[in-house]
Amino acid sequence: MNRCCISLLTDFGLQDTYVGQMKGVIAGINPDATVVDLTHAIPPQQIRLAAFALADAIDAFPDGTIHVAVVDPGVGSCRRAIAAEIGVHKFVCPDNGLLTAVLERYTLKRFVELDQPRFWRSGVSRTFHGRDIFAPAAAAWSRGIDLAQLGTAINHPLVTLHLPHPVQDRDPGTGRPRLNAMVMGVDHFGNLITNLTRSQLPPDAKQVEIRFAGQSLSGIAECYADHQEGSLLALFGSSEKLEIAVANGNAAAQLKVGAGESIHVCWTTPPT
Amino acid sequence: MNRCCISLLTDFGLQDTYVGQMKGVIAGINPDATVVDLTHAIPPQQIRLAAFALADAIDAFPDGTIHVAVVDPGVGSCRRAIAAEIGVHKFVCPDNGLLTAVLERYTLKRFVELDQPRFWRSGVSRTFHGRDIFAPAAAAWSRGIDLAQLGTAINHPLVTLHLPHPVQDRDPGTGRPRLNAMVMGVDHFGNLITNLTRSQLPPDAKQVEIRFAGQSLSGIAECYADHQEGSLLALFGSSEKLEIAVANGNAAAQLKVGAGESIHVCWTTPPT
Amino acid sequence: MNRCCISLLTDFGLQDTYVGQMKGVIAGINPDATVVDLTHAIPPQQIRLAAFALADAIDAFPDGTIHVAVVDPGVGSCRRAIAAEIGVHKFVCPDNGLLTAVLERYTLKRFVELDQPRFWRSGVSRTFHGRDIFAPAAAAWSRGIDLAQLGTAINHPLVTLHLPHPVQDRDPGTGRPRLNAMVMGVDHFGNLITNLTRSQLPPDAKQVEIRFAGQSLSGIAECYADHQEGSLLALFGSSEKLEIAVANGNAAAQLKVGAGESIHVCWTTPPT
Repeated sequence: MNRCCISLLTDFGLQDTYVGQMKGVIAGINPDATVVDLTHAIPPQQIRLAAFALADAIDAFPDGTIHVAVVDPGVGSCRRAIAAEIGVHKFVCPDNGLLTAVLERYTLKRFVELDQPRFWRSGVSRTFHGRDIFAPAAAAWSRGIDLAQLGTAINHPLVTLHLPHPVQDRDPGTGRPRLNAMVMGVDHFGNLITNLTRSQLPPDAKQVEIRFAGQSLSGIAECYADHQEGSLLALFGSSEKLEIAVANGNAAAQLKVGAGESIHVCWTTPPT
Repeated sequence: MNRCCISLLTDFGLQDTYVGQMKGVIAGINPDATVVDLTHAIPPQQIRLAAFALADAIDAFPDGTIHVAVVDPGVGSCRRAIAAEIGVHKFVCPDNGLLTAVLERYTLKRFVELDQPRFWRSGVSRTFHGRDIFAPAAAAWSRGIDLAQLGTAINHPLVTLHLPHPVQDRDPGTGRPRLNAMVMGVDHFGNLITNLTRSQLPPDAKQVEIRFAGQSLSGIAECYADHQEGSLLALFGSSEKLEIAVANGNAAAQLKVGAGESIHVCWTTPPT
Repeated sequence: MNRCCISLLTDFGLQDTYVGQMKGVIAGINPDATVVDLTHAIPPQQIRLAAFALADAIDAFPDGTIHVAVVDPGVGSCRRAIAAEIGVHKFVCPDNGLLTAVLERYTLKRFVELDQPRFWRSGVSRTFHGRDIFAPAAAAWSRGIDLAQLGTAINHPLVTLHLPHPVQDRDPGTGRPRLNAMVMGVDHFGNLITNLTRSQLPPDAKQVEIRFAGQSLSGIAECYADHQEGSLLALFGSSEKLEIAVANGNAAAQLKVGAGESIHVCWTTPPT
C-alpha cells in the first residue's frame, strides 16, 4: 500500500465538479492515497494568497506529503508545470510563484519540469492541467515513483513573487522601534490575519502597541477567551501570524477593514 | 490497519485551511482512519446548534466512530478538553456543552480530561486546539489506544447547556392538548427544522393542526412529494424532527421565517 | 479490501450534516471505499443540471466507480430507486432522469430497481433515501455484491428528460452553417458553459464566429492565457464544451449573462 497523503489547494471552488474530477484521477492511479482538501476557496487567480495559505498549512502534514497547488491563470500557456522537494514536503504545481512563501522558509532540494506525457492523463486539455497533469503526476509520485522519472531537472530557478513583509523603522512620534505590517486576508471568523510573524517581534518586547484603522491596542493577548466578548484584541494565531480579532465576534465586519489595511506595531526593549 | 471512522464537526468554514490542517495531523498519526466531514458550517460559536446537529447525525455512523466536535469560543482558556464514550459512540471536544443533546439520548459510559501532552501536537497553540489537541487525540484513540491513557478520569460532571424543548399545555381556545415548539434552524433546502420529535406526539394523535407565523396546516405529510409543488406542508424529517417545508420550494424564503419562530401543534386523542 | 471508488453528487449543500450522514453509512458498510464528492451544489431539484454535471465528470474516474446521484424531488413517492451499469461506470440514483446525459453517451448494460430492503438502512425515512437507500446500496455494491442481488431487473425503460442540444441551421444573413446553442450554467470562475461540444463543430470549420448577448467573437482560443487579461474569448473547456470566458476575469459578471442565454456559432467549411 502507498498510503501517502496528498493535499489539494486550488481556486476551483466546490460548486463545480473540478475538484471531484482531480480526486477521481488520483483514485484511479493510487487508490490508497489519503487525499485532503487544504482549501478550494483561494480567490480566482490570487497566487500570492495561495502562496501564504500553502506555507502556513503544510507543517500540520506528515513528512513526505505531496501538496498539489493549482492557482493557474497561465494554464495552457508556456508556463512550466513542476514537481519539487522542499524541506520534508513535496509539491506539484504550475511554476508561477505559488511556492514563494514555502521557499522563504524551507530548503529547496530538487525539482523537475513535468514534461513526461506518460504520467499525464491521455488527451490533456489546455484548460484543466489540475486534472490532466498535476493530479496524475502527484498520484504517480505517491506510488513511490522517483522524482527524476516524473520530469527533467532544470537549471532555471523557480519563479518567485514579491511577497509583502513587514518593514521595521522607528515610530516618528516616540522613536520606539516599529514594524509596519499589513492585513493579508480575513478568515472565516472575521479575524484580520497580518503578515507579521511572532519571530519578527523581539521576545523581550514590552509595552507593545498595535495601531490600525484609527484603533490602538495595548499588548498582545494569549487567546480569544482572555478578553470580554465583543472586545478587540491582537494575538498570534495558529500560524504564528499577528491577527486582530474580536472576542466571539467578527473583527472585519465590526471594523469594516479588510486585506491591504496597514498595521503598525511599536514596542520598547528593556535597556541592556 | 486501524480503519476507524473519525467525523469532524466545526464552525471553521471551508474557506481557510483550518479543517485541512486537522486532517493533515490525523493523516500523520493514523493514515488508515476514514475521516468524514459532518459539517464545518456551524455558525461561529453557536454551541447549541452544534449540539443538535451532532446528536442528529451520529446514528448514521458505525459503532465506535470518533466524533470530533470543535465549536470552541473558550479555546486557550481553562475550559477542559475531553474525550468521552457515550452509547456506542466516542467523542473528542471541548467541555462546553457540545455533548448536551447526545447526553440526553445516550448513556455516558466514561470520560477523561485530555491532559496528556504526549498525545498532543508539539508546540500547542492557544488558538487552535482543533489541530493541536483534539485531532491528535482522536487520531491516537482511533489507533486503539485506551481512553484511560489519553487523559485522567474526572469526577466533575460534563458541562451541559439548557436546550429548548417543546412544552406541553392545552390550547386555550379548544382545550386540546398542545405542544409549543420552536424552529431551531433552517436547512439548505429552506426547510424549518423544529425541536419537536416524532416520539413527543402521541402515536394515535388525530386532527393534528400546526400553527405558526400566521399559517395553519392540517395533518402531517409523509413526504415532500405528497403535496403539490409550492404548497406548504409539515412532516417529520430524516432526524425525526418536525419540519415545515414547501414542496419543491424554500419555506424559509417563502414565509420569511427563521430560527426562533414559535410553532404550536394541537391534536385530539381518541377517547379510551 | 474493496477499494472501490464511490462518487457523490447531490443538491444537499454542505451546510447541514446530510452528506456526512451518507458517508457515515458508507463507512459502516465498506470502510475501504474511497468516497469522492463530485459536487453538492446542484441547485435544489435541478435534475437537468445534475444530469449534465454527472456526464461531464465521470470520465475522470476509474472504471467501475459507483456514482451516487441524489437530486430527488420525488423522494418518498413511487418514483423508483435504481442501480445501473452504463459503459464502464455504475450508478445509483432515483429514476427521474438524472442519467439522461450519461445514457446519451454510453451504453446501458443492465439496471435493477433497488427493491431489496436487506440492503437498506433499517428504518428507512420517507425524506432521506440518500442516506437510507442509495448510500447503503452503493456501499454494498462496492463490496462486490452482484447487481442482480441488489434489486430486480425491470422491463420499463429508465426515465429520461429532454435535454437541450444545439440545433443546426443556416445563418439567415450569410447563409453560412450555424449552430444555435445555449448557456447551460456558470462555473465558479464565471465562465459561461454551453451545450455545444467540440465534436459538433466540423474539424475543418474556418472563420468561426460566436455571437451572443450583443457580442461577437472571431475564432476559438486554445486556452485562457492566449488572450490579454480582461478580454473576452471562446474556447472548448475541460469537458469539451464551448465556453465563453474572460481571461483572468469573470464573464458572467462582466456580461451580466447567465444560464438560458442563446449562443450562435457560424463557420465556413472549405469547398471540397
